[in-house]
Amino acid sequence: MPVQTFPDSLETALQMLAAQQWTAQELTNHCLERIHSLNPELNAFLTISDAYAQQRARAVDLLATSFPEALGPLAGAPISIKDLIHTSFAATTYGSQIYRDYRPTLNASVVERLERAHAIIVGKTHLHEFAYGITNENAHYGPARNPVDTKRMTGGSSGGSAASVRASLALASIGTDTGGSIRIPASLTGIVGYKPTHGLVPVDGVLPLASTLDHVGPLTRTVRDAALLTDILALTHGTGASLRSALDEIEEKPLRIGIPGRLIERFATDPVSEHFAKLISFLEERQLVVWKRQLGFDADEIALHQGNIQGAEAFTVHQTRLQEHGDLYGEDVFERLQTSSKISAQDYIRSLAFREAFQREIDSWFADIDIILLPTTPVVAPELGTEFVEVRGEASHIRPLMTRFTNPWNLSGVPAISIPGGLADGLPFGLQLVGQFGQDAGLLRIAAQLEQALAGWNEAANARL
Amino acid sequence: MPVQTFPDSLETALQMLAAQQWTAQELTNHCLERIHSLNPELNAFLTISDAYAQQRARAVDLLATSFPEALGPLAGAPISIKDLIHTSFAATTYGSQIYRDYRPTLNASVVERLERAHAIIVGKTHLHEFAYGITNENAHYGPARNPVDTKRMTGGSSGGSAASVRASLALASIGTDTGGSIRIPASLTGIVGYKPTHGLVPVDGVLPLASTLDHVGPLTRTVRDAALLTDILALTHGTGASLRSALDEIEEKPLRIGIPGRLIERFATDPVSEHFAKLISFLEERQLVVWKRQLGFDADEIALHQGNIQGAEAFTVHQTRLQEHGDLYGEDVFERLQTSSKISAQDYIRSLAFREAFQREIDSWFADIDIILLPTTPVVAPELGTEFVEVRGEASHIRPLMTRFTNPWNLSGVPAISIPGGLADGLPFGLQLVGQFGQDAGLLRIAAQLEQALAGWNEAANARL
Repeated sequence: MPVQTFPDSLETALQMLAAQQWTAQELTNHCLERIHSLNPELNAFLTISDAYAQQRARAVDLLATSFPEALGPLAGAPISIKDLIHTSFAATTYGSQIYRDYRPTLNASVVERLERAHAIIVGKTHLHEFAYGITNENAHYGPARNPVDTKRMTGGSSGGSAASVRASLALASIGTDTGGSIRIPASLTGIVGYKPTHGLVPVDGVLPLASTLDHVGPLTRTVRDAALLTDILALTHGTGASLRSALDEIEEKPLRIGIPGRLIERFATDPVSEHFAKLISFLEERQLVVWKRQLGFDADEIALHQGNIQGAEAFTVHQTRLQEHGDLYGEDVFERLQTSSKISAQDYIRSLAFREAFQREIDSWFADIDIILLPTTPVVAPELGTEFVEVRGEASHIRPLMTRFTNPWNLSGVPAISIPGGLADGLPFGLQLVGQFGQDAGLLRIAAQLEQALAGWNEAANARL
Repeated sequence: MPVQTFPDSLETALQMLAAQQWTAQELTNHCLERIHSLNPELNAFLTISDAYAQQRARAVDLLATSFPEALGPLAGAPISIKDLIHTSFAATTYGSQIYRDYRPTLNASVVERLERAHAIIVGKTHLHEFAYGITNENAHYGPARNPVDTKRMTGGSSGGSAASVRASLALASIGTDTGGSIRIPASLTGIVGYKPTHGLVPVDGVLPLASTLDHVGPLTRTVRDAALLTDILALTHGTGASLRSALDEIEEKPLRIGIPGRLIERFATDPVSEHFAKLISFLEERQLVVWKRQLGFDADEIALHQGNIQGAEAFTVHQTRLQEHGDLYGEDVFERLQTSSKISAQDYIRSLAFREAFQREIDSWFADIDIILLPTTPVVAPELGTEFVEVRGEASHIRPLMTRFTNPWNLSGVPAISIPGGLADGLPFGLQLVGQFGQDAGLLRIAAQLEQALAGWNEAANARL
């Protein structure tokens, strides 16, 4: 038997499975072995569901021989799930000590949909405690480590998901994003992270962080994988609204782009802003950009209102638990929740009103642009333990800094995706694309187009591992 | 020239105007004279717009002779407007001392729509300060007085609107209702007050009390007038969705009714609960009720959540003004706003969640009922100055008591109407009908049916004035 090549994407995996180059059990066992070998260092998984995954893989293989027409669209593909998402077959800790042994009775909707598509869920991935943070340094379970450089952060809160995909422990992962929690770790580890339009993917069975800002979405190797997986999560697979089908033919369309230049100037570190500028120049030289417009908005207002809404809603979720088990929370999360308890109803209401105005403003931008482009994170993967980063000569606390480029798109609910854009300072750079509310197919088409255009940029990045 | 009979409804007025029994100027002047003669006692109007109304009436009469096809559907009908609603041609005080001389530059949408229908706006009616109260006892402008008995309250906050209609100072009035402010004064003065489904009538150009609970609607003599006027306010006049057209043929359909029996038992005074029981028995004897179901809900929870939402949203509107002009607020409103400032974001969020659950519950009731019936107010018109009312042997503060039967339908946004139901203890009794969300035509059909059935009950009531 020839040595089997590990597929470089979910789509490739599905093709190889269909061509019987791998059986579901072989591919699942391969991933499980890799997880057992690398997880002690990476700390990407909190729970590895060997027996369950193997049993499901066996069932898929059986189906493939006896009744192949019944195979689901993800049949046999090993996938990991952020441990904020309920699974009835494996513990769901939320990254919290309190729920170390919690086993929900029901699967989240997205888990049901993946299982109906015959994906193989190999385990539950690490996260910032209760998803309330962006470093994935977890007081109870230690940090998740970046496969690109294990001294560095994955970013969070879906850090384990990103690590699992980047280190080829799974073909894809499902994460959640309230202020950047899918896109940030995707950016820092050099993969694709996609936050669909708010409401497109159901969030039931996922512990809320802040219900009006929460999104569920995929972390993958490619834009097409993100589209394919979202089709399963949103029940658009095989329908006229299929996102994956929208990518069948990608034209090299010259783009009208919007860039929040002052935001980038104010918050990006030098390597990130220089790399971004180089990348835009490259696109312009390739005639991929025909029109460039500066977008202005008040970053402090955005942060204030996003903070009010996120804090108020998060405290509502945690209030009773905090009273009963406050001592079992990690210090950083405890403090953030305490601060959040002081938000008044009128602050919240005003922030909701600001959000509506901001949504209308973004909508108006799209009158003459096709896409918003900016770095996903102001900084490349910091070393574990980093609290402050130097930006324009000043020390900036990493927590508010890290979400500056991502959380405007949670506040507004518009779709956003981070794709790899080469290496900055020798570490993965994430390019963020932001689309119009509900226009996910359009966003992904442009993302696929730029992914193709930047293929050369990512050769070095991908070669590192 | 024979003595002109004053029309007993808006529809009659429009017929008489069309038949040239009155000109617009005659009818307008008749109303204006009545206002000048009775307003010193009733205090129904804060501003009387003689010159403006006369000029508009003259224009309507001119149109009637020269270009009658261009006449709007309310051509020549004198109507009053609650002084919370912006008019560019007359002061808009909000019942507040601060705005004694405030003249907005723009009309509210509903005013625009009335004017486009060629209604004659004769003045701005009295209200509880900033619409934040139910007695219409106003620290700055004195109380509005009930035309049925001027020692008694009109109820509020649209008390001047109710008085203006009941005393035939206008053919109809436009009020606002956040916890019962249209239906309560309609009930206490013996007229019709209708709060359409939330969102049906635009609220722009109306000072918010609590934006997610605020409704604009009509106070009229008859259910058909309420339908007709709402068609103008909601732009459904002459369309397939016309509410007035839905009343063209009213069948005597036996009804399946829901009654919140425990709510009534707990809060209604004896005369009100006894009268309501007699009224239901009458409908049963007349075979108008075929199925009666008890509806249970927790009145204290409703009041708590309605209070949180109303308070938080009201404080948001008033915060800056309170800081600058706190001393110019009436004591009762100032105190309520101070209390409201302490509502936390998490209380507000929980109240929003309760509201959603309550909306679903109400919706489920309509699986086997056609209508909810209850008294509009737990008490008939109290004397001015009353603070406590005896209910079941205990003294009950009038403010929370008075909205117990009306505010559940603001919290849930469902349509509700108060129609006259005879006299209880010698004073007007309002029967409240509550319909399903968005099913305003169905509600009004049943209201018209019961209005007809109760015609005998109201002869004595109507004869009083």
